[in-house]
Amino acid sequence: MVPHLTTALTGPLLELEQHILSNTAKIERWFRSQWHAHEAPFYTSVDLRNSGFKLAPVDTNLFPGGFNNLNTDFIPLAVQAAMSAVEKICPEAQQLLLIPENHTRNVFYLQNVARLASILRQTGLEVRIGSLIPDLTEPLTLDIGDDEHLTLEPVIRRGNRIGLADYDPCAVLLNNDLSAGVPAILQGIEQKLLPPLHAGWHVRRKSQHFTAYERVAQEFAKLIDIDPWFINPYFATCGEIDFHARQGEACLEKHVEFMLEQISEKYKQYGIESDPFVIVKADAGTYGMGIMTVKSPADVRDLNRKQRNKMAVGKEGLQVSEVIIQEGVYTFESINDAIAEPVVYMMDHFVIGGFYRVHTGRGVDENLNAPGMHFVPLAFETPCCTPNQMANPDATPNRFYTYGVVARLAMLAAAIELEQ
Amino acid sequence: MVPHLTTALTGPLLELEQHILSNTAKIERWFRSQWHAHEAPFYTSVDLRNSGFKLAPVDTNLFPGGFNNLNTDFIPLAVQAAMSAVEKICPEAQQLLLIPENHTRNVFYLQNVARLASILRQTGLEVRIGSLIPDLTEPLTLDIGDDEHLTLEPVIRRGNRIGLADYDPCAVLLNNDLSAGVPAILQGIEQKLLPPLHAGWHVRRKSQHFTAYERVAQEFAKLIDIDPWFINPYFATCGEIDFHARQGEACLEKHVEFMLEQISEKYKQYGIESDPFVIVKADAGTYGMGIMTVKSPADVRDLNRKQRNKMAVGKEGLQVSEVIIQEGVYTFESINDAIAEPVVYMMDHFVIGGFYRVHTGRGVDENLNAPGMHFVPLAFETPCCTPNQMANPDATPNRFYTYGVVARLAMLAAAIELEQ
Repeated sequence: MVPHLTTALTGPLLELEQHILSNTAKIERWFRSQWHAHEAPFYTSVDLRNSGFKLAPVDTNLFPGGFNNLNTDFIPLAVQAAMSAVEKICPEAQQLLLIPENHTRNVFYLQNVARLASILRQTGLEVRIGSLIPDLTEPLTLDIGDDEHLTLEPVIRRGNRIGLADYDPCAVLLNNDLSAGVPAILQGIEQKLLPPLHAGWHVRRKSQHFTAYERVAQEFAKLIDIDPWFINPYFATCGEIDFHARQGEACLEKHVEFMLEQISEKYKQYGIESDPFVIVKADAGTYGMGIMTVKSPADVRDLNRKQRNKMAVGKEGLQVSEVIIQEGVYTFESINDAIAEPVVYMMDHFVIGGFYRVHTGRGVDENLNAPGMHFVPLAFETPCCTPNQMANPDATPNRFYTYGVVARLAMLAAAIELEQ
Repeated sequence: MVPHLTTALTGPLLELEQHILSNTAKIERWFRSQWHAHEAPFYTSVDLRNSGFKLAPVDTNLFPGGFNNLNTDFIPLAVQAAMSAVEKICPEAQQLLLIPENHTRNVFYLQNVARLASILRQTGLEVRIGSLIPDLTEPLTLDIGDDEHLTLEPVIRRGNRIGLADYDPCAVLLNNDLSAGVPAILQGIEQKLLPPLHAGWHVRRKSQHFTAYERVAQEFAKLIDIDPWFINPYFATCGEIDFHARQGEACLEKHVEFMLEQISEKYKQYGIESDPFVIVKADAGTYGMGIMTVKSPADVRDLNRKQRNKMAVGKEGLQVSEVIIQEGVYTFESINDAIAEPVVYMMDHFVIGGFYRVHTGRGVDENLNAPGMHFVPLAFETPCCTPNQMANPDATPNRFYTYGVVARLAMLAAAIELEQ
C-alpha cells in the first residue's frame, strides 16, 4: 500500500519526476563526483514534503531515530551500506559503542536503537550500548516488546577514552543529537566519534543547512534544467528573538510578509491555486518543538501568551532565541484520508529505505513530526534504488527513486555543512 | 526451501561455522584492511563445495553468467553494490557498453545479460549491448521469454574507441571470458575495460588463482585459528600434457597418487570415512569442459581414446595442454535427493546473493557445471550479509554468511591474481 497524491500528477511534479527519471545517468554521475569531493555523514534521515507541484526536504537529521520503521525486507541494504560507512570512516574499528538518547520510556525509540545495533552487528562489529543517563550506575535491561530486550550500560571515562566497565571501543556512534550541549564525558576523547560532535544541535543550525542546500539545489537544478524552486523551499532567519519579551517580532513579521509574496508569485507563475504559508521554527534542534504554521504576517504579530510560550521552548526545555522562517510545502500525499509525509533513510551515501509518517489528525500544512504526535509508520514498499525506465514517472519505484534523489541532495548539503 | 547437509553437522564444518560466526568482528575488520590494499574485481562468482567437513571454492569466475538465477528480492543489493563498483572503478562513466558471449541460442544466458544490464541501468548508467558475433551487421533482437527481448548490436571500432553505430561509451564491461583470445577489435582500445583483458581465460590459469587463494586461506586460517585445509583444496599442476600423444601422463599419475595420499591423511586425522578423490581439469577455461573425477592413479594411467578426446578439448574447441589436479571436495548438500552446489555472486567486494545448482543426475563427487548439464537454479533464500549470532551456526542466514566469507576469500585471491 502506497499513499497517493491527491493532486493530479500532470503538473510540475510529474515534470520533475520525468526530468529526474530521464536524467538518471547524468544525476548518478554527478552524485559520484560529489561523493569524491565530500564525505557523506555516517547516517542521515531526511523529511520530505510532496505537494504535487513541489518536492522538498524540510528537515535533515544526522542522528536518525526511526530505523525500527524501515521495511525489514531491506535490512540487507542497510547492512551493506553500513559496511561501506564503516570501511570509509573507521576501517580499523572492531568494537563500537553506540550512545543513544536518554529516553528510556519511549519504546519506539528503544526499538530504533536495537535495530540500529543489529544492523551494525551484521556488518561484523561488536556493538554495545552506552548510556549517558546521569544516575545510571549499573546495566539497565529494558523490555522493548516482542520478547526483545535492550541493555544500556553506564558510559565510563578512563583518561581520554570512554567505554563500559569491561569494554574499550575503537569508535563511538552517537544516536544522541546533543541538543543540551556536549556532556563533559564526551569532550576531548581520543576515539573516533561519529557523527563528529559539531553535528549536534548545540552547534548545528537549520539555516546553515539550508544555505548549503540552496547551493546544492541550484547546481542540481542547472544540471537537469529545472527551476530550483521545485526542490528548494525559501528560507530566512532573524537574529535574536525573545518571544517572552516580544523582541524581534518585527523582523519576523517582515520576513513572513516578504516570503508569502515570493511564494505567491511562484504559485501564480505555475498556476497553483493553494494558499501560500510559511513555517516558523527554532533554528537549532529537532523533534518538531517550537513550530508554527503562518499564513499571514498578522499571525506572528498577535501571538498570545500560550503561543509565545510554545515557541519559546525547544527540546530539553532550552530557550529558543533563533528561528528560521521557511516556505511551507504542502503534503498532498495521503492514505485512507490520513496525511502521509515521507522520511528517507541513508547510511554512507546510499539510500537504504524510508517510511511514511501517517497521521489522521493533522492538516496538509502542519508539521507531522511534533511532540505528542503519534504517527503510524508505513515502511516504503520498494527500495529507492530501483528506478524503472519502462514504467510511468509516478510509478511507485520511480516515485521512491525521486525521493531518494532529493534526500541525497539534502544529505550532500549536510556533508558540506559539516565541513564548514 | 534450503538444501540440507546429509552429513550430521557435528563435525569439522560446524566447528568452522562456529569459528567464523564467533569471529565476525575480526573477519570483517580483516576484510576491510584487505580491500584497502587490493581492488576487488568488478564482479565475481565463486562455485563452492560443501562436504560437511570442508567448505572450499572450486572455481572463481570473473565473468559471471548467472545473474538471472539470483533471488529478485535482493536485486537492490546488487544495484547498491554495482553503484560502489562503478564509483571506484569508473566514476566518470555515464554510458556503458556490455559485451556478452556470442551465445544467441542459450536463452538462460541471454536472461543473465538482460538482468545484468537492468542492474547496471538502475545504478544510473546508460547501457547497451554490443556483440562480437562475427557476421552481425545490424541490431539483432532476441526473444528471451516472459515477453522480454534483448537487442544485440554490432560493435564498431573507430580509431582507438569501440562503440555502436550511434553510441560512444565511456566504459566497456565484458561478460565474455575471452577463452579464444582477445579479438582484434578489443585490442589497444582507450576506454576503460572491465574486468581488464588479462582476466580472460586466454591468460588466466586456475593454478595461479589457487596459488593466490592458498596464501589468502593460510592468512585467514591463522586469523581465526583453524586448519587451512578446511577451506583450501590441495592442488598441483603438470607442465605440458598432450592427451592424444599420451605425453605427460606419468606426471599426472604421480601427482594424483601423491594427492590422494595427502587427502587420506587428512581424512584419517579428522575421522572422515569418505573415499578421497581428485579432479583433473584444464588449467585455463571454464564451463566444466575437460573435467575428470579420479579416485586412483590407475584412472589416469589407462585412459581410453574417448576419455583422452574428452580431456583434450576445452571451450571453443581449444586444445587442452595444461591441467590442474585439485583435491575433490564432496557436495554433501542435497534437496529432494538431488545434489546441490552453491554459487555465490559478488559485485565490487559485496556479496549480493547466490543460488544452488541443483542436479538429480550427478554424483556427489562430480562437477555440476559441465556441458549438457541442465541444472535447476535455486536462489538463496536469505542474503549472505545477515549473520545472526542468536541462531545456531548452521541456521540458514549463518550458513549463507559462511558461504559469503569463503567466497570473498576466493574473490580476494582473484584480486591479488589480477595484480600480478
